[in-house]
Amino acid sequence: MTPPAASPAYRRLGVEERRSQLLDAALNLFAHRAPEDVSLDDVAEAAGVSRPLVYRYFPGGKQQLYEAALRSAAEELRQCFDEPREGPLLPRLGRALDRYLTFVDEHDAGFTALLQGGSVVETSRTTAIVDGVRRAAAEHIMSHLEITGPGPRLRMTVRMWITAVEAASLIWLDEDKQPPADELRDWLVEQFVALLTVTARRDAQTAELVRGALAAET
Amino acid sequence: MTPPAASPAYRRLGVEERRSQLLDAALNLFAHRAPEDVSLDDVAEAAGVSRPLVYRYFPGGKQQLYEAALRSAAEELRQCFDEPREGPLLPRLGRALDRYLTFVDEHDAGFTALLQGGSVVETSRTTAIVDGVRRAAAEHIMSHLEITGPGPRLRMTVRMWITAVEAASLIWLDEDKQPPADELRDWLVEQFVALLTVTARRDAQTAELVRGALAAET
Repeated sequence: MTPPAASPAYRRLGVEERRSQLLDAALNLFAHRAPEDVSLDDVAEAAGVSRPLVYRYFPGGKQQLYEAALRSAAEELRQCFDEPREGPLLPRLGRALDRYLTFVDEHDAGFTALLQGGSVVETSRTTAIVDGVRRAAAEHIMSHLEITGPGPRLRMTVRMWITAVEAASLIWLDEDKQPPADELRDWLVEQFVALLTVTARRDAQTAELVRGALAAET
Repeated sequence: MTPPAASPAYRRLGVEERRSQLLDAALNLFAHRAPEDVSLDDVAEAAGVSRPLVYRYFPGGKQQLYEAALRSAAEELRQCFDEPREGPLLPRLGRALDRYLTFVDEHDAGFTALLQGGSVVETSRTTAIVDGVRRAAAEHIMSHLEITGPGPRLRMTVRMWITAVEAASLIWLDEDKQPPADELRDWLVEQFVALLTVTARRDAQTAELVRGALAAET
């Protein structure tokens, strides 16, 4: 007897290999559905294994699988921000945004469920994972701007822009990914410059940044 | 025997009066503490009644009280946006922001817990209440701008700014309410104009708005 064509054939895997296979299956399901619409049976089926096997690797069930998948997605997002520190600043920001928007595009429903809040799997731990990604984004920006001790106004400006980018991503998914990603990317870069320019009127550190690093590019 | 001075003397109240007294006590507690740090006993004590009496009015316990308090706070926030449609636009926005920042100031810990997510009392219902406030803010802004059919780019810009204002409020609370509220207010108004100006380069509707209504004021 051969297994049904729809479900992947069961293969014996090593512990780490099996764990990562289950995680991949979960990540793929959580990316495109709200967490409440993913069951452990779905994960087992997608991975071609039994439900008890999923429990053996993730005794905490769906919550544990979700958090593991979220940690893996957060790591992927951090890698989006990894951009060499060379060449003009704004194209660097543009390239990081390109990768970020590709991630958003590929994790649409999961991204929305995660950031919209009120999900059944949301806990202070999942919130902390997401906040860690936001903090990493802010640190990357500061390091590209070559700012080591950002004052409160510059910090607030950068964090406001990061939040606005998140909001734009959610609206973008909600509006059938319009405008096209490359237009959205350019628009977000322009907003970054505009916000810094407004802050520069009130803050000497930001003013120096806008006069120096950004002036040549805009 | 007189009751201890610390707890308010028990008085017989009508049903509506009692309900609203309990709600006020809850709102006050939820405003300044995270929901997980408020117990039904705290609410009973603050209102000078017994715990069973609180349960008689709110059989759903803390979750029901929290949602009722949140609905009441959301109504208060909507009233912040209520600004007569007369006089120059930007001072109108400034006055609405003044009231909003006063609200944030008076509901500091509760505001933070609510918007930071991952709270034990957060559900899809509480998220929907908060989203309703955001939508109301966007509608108020459109009506002051006298825009009846906002296109996607203008809508996205306004919603991004609203999210950025929320982020600024959280950071403001986190940074001991610095800069002072009136400076933060002016800065947020300037950011609103800057974001619209950037969008105007890509969107005819926004361009007309910036040329017309806002040009005279900036």
